[in-house]
Amino acid sequence: MDSDRSIGVGLLGAGVVGSEVGRVLLAPGASDAQGLDLKRVLVRDMSARRSRIPRSLLTDDAEEVLGDSDIAVVVELMGGVEPARSYIAAAMSSGKHVVTANKEVIAKHGDELSRIARANDVGLSYEASVGGGIPVLAVLQDSLGANRIDTIRAIINGTTNYILTSMDETGAAFADALKQAQELGYAEADPTADVEAYDPVFKLAILSRLAWGVSVPPSDVYRSGISDIGAKDLRYARELGFKIKLLAIATSESDGIRCRVHPALVPLNVPMADVNGVLNAVEFNGDLVGPLWLQGRGAGAGPTASAVMGDLLRIARQIRSGNGFASGSDAPGNGAKHGEVLTIDGLEVGYYVRLSAVDRSGVLAKIADVFGASQISIASVIQKDSDDERGLADLVITTHPAVESRMQTAAARLRELDVVSSLDNLIRIEHYDSSTGT
Amino acid sequence: MDSDRSIGVGLLGAGVVGSEVGRVLLAPGASDAQGLDLKRVLVRDMSARRSRIPRSLLTDDAEEVLGDSDIAVVVELMGGVEPARSYIAAAMSSGKHVVTANKEVIAKHGDELSRIARANDVGLSYEASVGGGIPVLAVLQDSLGANRIDTIRAIINGTTNYILTSMDETGAAFADALKQAQELGYAEADPTADVEAYDPVFKLAILSRLAWGVSVPPSDVYRSGISDIGAKDLRYARELGFKIKLLAIATSESDGIRCRVHPALVPLNVPMADVNGVLNAVEFNGDLVGPLWLQGRGAGAGPTASAVMGDLLRIARQIRSGNGFASGSDAPGNGAKHGEVLTIDGLEVGYYVRLSAVDRSGVLAKIADVFGASQISIASVIQKDSDDERGLADLVITTHPAVESRMQTAAARLRELDVVSSLDNLIRIEHYDSSTGT
Repeated sequence: MDSDRSIGVGLLGAGVVGSEVGRVLLAPGASDAQGLDLKRVLVRDMSARRSRIPRSLLTDDAEEVLGDSDIAVVVELMGGVEPARSYIAAAMSSGKHVVTANKEVIAKHGDELSRIARANDVGLSYEASVGGGIPVLAVLQDSLGANRIDTIRAIINGTTNYILTSMDETGAAFADALKQAQELGYAEADPTADVEAYDPVFKLAILSRLAWGVSVPPSDVYRSGISDIGAKDLRYARELGFKIKLLAIATSESDGIRCRVHPALVPLNVPMADVNGVLNAVEFNGDLVGPLWLQGRGAGAGPTASAVMGDLLRIARQIRSGNGFASGSDAPGNGAKHGEVLTIDGLEVGYYVRLSAVDRSGVLAKIADVFGASQISIASVIQKDSDDERGLADLVITTHPAVESRMQTAAARLRELDVVSSLDNLIRIEHYDSSTGT
Repeated sequence: MDSDRSIGVGLLGAGVVGSEVGRVLLAPGASDAQGLDLKRVLVRDMSARRSRIPRSLLTDDAEEVLGDSDIAVVVELMGGVEPARSYIAAAMSSGKHVVTANKEVIAKHGDELSRIARANDVGLSYEASVGGGIPVLAVLQDSLGANRIDTIRAIINGTTNYILTSMDETGAAFADALKQAQELGYAEADPTADVEAYDPVFKLAILSRLAWGVSVPPSDVYRSGISDIGAKDLRYARELGFKIKLLAIATSESDGIRCRVHPALVPLNVPMADVNGVLNAVEFNGDLVGPLWLQGRGAGAGPTASAVMGDLLRIARQIRSGNGFASGSDAPGNGAKHGEVLTIDGLEVGYYVRLSAVDRSGVLAKIADVFGASQISIASVIQKDSDDERGLADLVITTHPAVESRMQTAAARLRELDVVSSLDNLIRIEHYDSSTGT
């Protein structure tokens, strides 16, 4: 291929991110500097105003992008599974390279789409699908290629991190913090994907697949959202020396890998506790590199466009060099493949338990009995916020590391105790090595 | 080239890092998994024990590595300018790719070596030369390729960061903290390269060259080490809400780029203040991505080997794909080239000034006059640690942002004042945007 010829690019989608990618590609001098030429932009509504992209490039017919032989790379920024998946597959099947920011389609259909990419010797890149502008996938696949990855620990959902930060700083209830996030544009009108943690599950599935070369269906990732976290929990956690963060954690264990997304207590003195607002952070732990920490803006037009453009420039370099893509950047796996994605049952962590119990003597003994019967060792107990009228008090109990399945059994028994009015929350405590903060 | 054939690797140097790279390459199964085959290792002393590398691979004749046609990639881990520079040039001239961790040779001769690499269509990679295991160069050149970089701010010398952390935490004097660092192996017997900041200057020169595509001779980087920092300064800084860190800072300005390495006051509430011990951290600020933060181990066998291996695997992939290297990863420059490397004279920052002055009324007025005459606005004055015997007291003055050349003029005048016994320190205050911590 002529190394001087610019490479045709087609965009699928011209929302916030698509418009920014269009702006970057169309900026004065950009085409010459980058060797990229924006040919066509698929939009849903031709009549919508788009000041950054000339009308002449717009189309509402996908075939005008997918069937244009001048377009070598298709950038998919529509989101959702369909029609994104069909368009990506069709583009690659006709020999086009694909860049996408679509975490859902990659998490759910990454294996299939990678096979299509290899079969057609085209590139499939999706850096923007995880961590926005933070180059987590390039670092994991490329720079850390010689490392065995032990652990991935991340805050990869800006919406929930904003809500938890806001609850922590202002004492607001979840519903109020969510409403404020919606007003500021940090949360969707239907916030389910974020607050119920579907979004970070997709991202962790992608990271885990690349780190360990195994297929990780999102349904195999343990998921628990933040809608049950109360301002009380954040306050009690802080008194105990912790913040509460929605963590995405994947670990390589002797018998497989374990992937989970849930709220967790994080010690105040580790960097993860200082990741506030909409920021994202990812911590890799590799056998050679040790702990490696990346932090930045996990969403928004500019950061996402930065990642999309990085992928686009990399593919363009590869096209120009006449290089093949068959062994390309999407091939997953550092080191040996693990067989299995484990459930959370065998997880061993400490727990924070908040329950509402009858405020009288002898109650604690009954509760402690339940923990003892499940061989769970209590680390601390504090009594808070008595409600004299109802004769109840909050009991906040933390435990030493215990097996998840035992803790769930204990929780069920606690709920049945006559002296327990309600078990209000059960939050895992993330263990950090005190010497390294990791 | 046969894509199944393994690629021959030669090592120049088998010190701490070389031995670790050798261990990784020779680990059971590694050669098959990586497609790399360690052929030969140049050592200085054949009789030294090296448990990790078989004697049969060792040689003390460089020609046995540089002239071996089975070796496709040479990994230079000797350090220093000569003979490293000659060996790298010779290897590339005979068509071999080169991976090096040598910051000095790249900072001083990177332009020349890049030309040789391009002329011979070979790869020249040096991720390990900056920030140890943190993939700063890959992120800067590759992932952030579409960004205009505004600022690079970094802690890229673990030795000095360890010393400053230790002084801050224990109140130790510089000499004692240095001695302790030497005992722990964190500082060399001759600590000049670190404590006088030659090492981070090399690294910042490399980063700046890649960020802006300009030649940055290390001699154009402003340099000031930490040997003048007293435990007093760390204490006073903390009272003012700051830590003192040896920062490496490069900024893109309207008329050029400015590169400087010097101790700086860093606000306690920004992430840079929490980078302690031997850790390194690099913060890029790009027009699309915004602030991007990378943190990890900046030195040591494992992290350095991680970066070397990342380069090696990347080059191996490129060799296997039959790709050319002419437009390869060493080509510097995101965005437009800036003309000039600016001196520090036009820098505008706040200053921390510690001086020993006569402890009597009217003295402060004389001192304030000097600042006023140089049009420098004083932000705060505190009087500390009076020495009644000598009739002297420490005065710690902070200023609002002022032009460097004016501050230097004022400092010269302060030294001449009869009421000033000594001007003990002048430390720049790094400005952070309070809203973003960057």
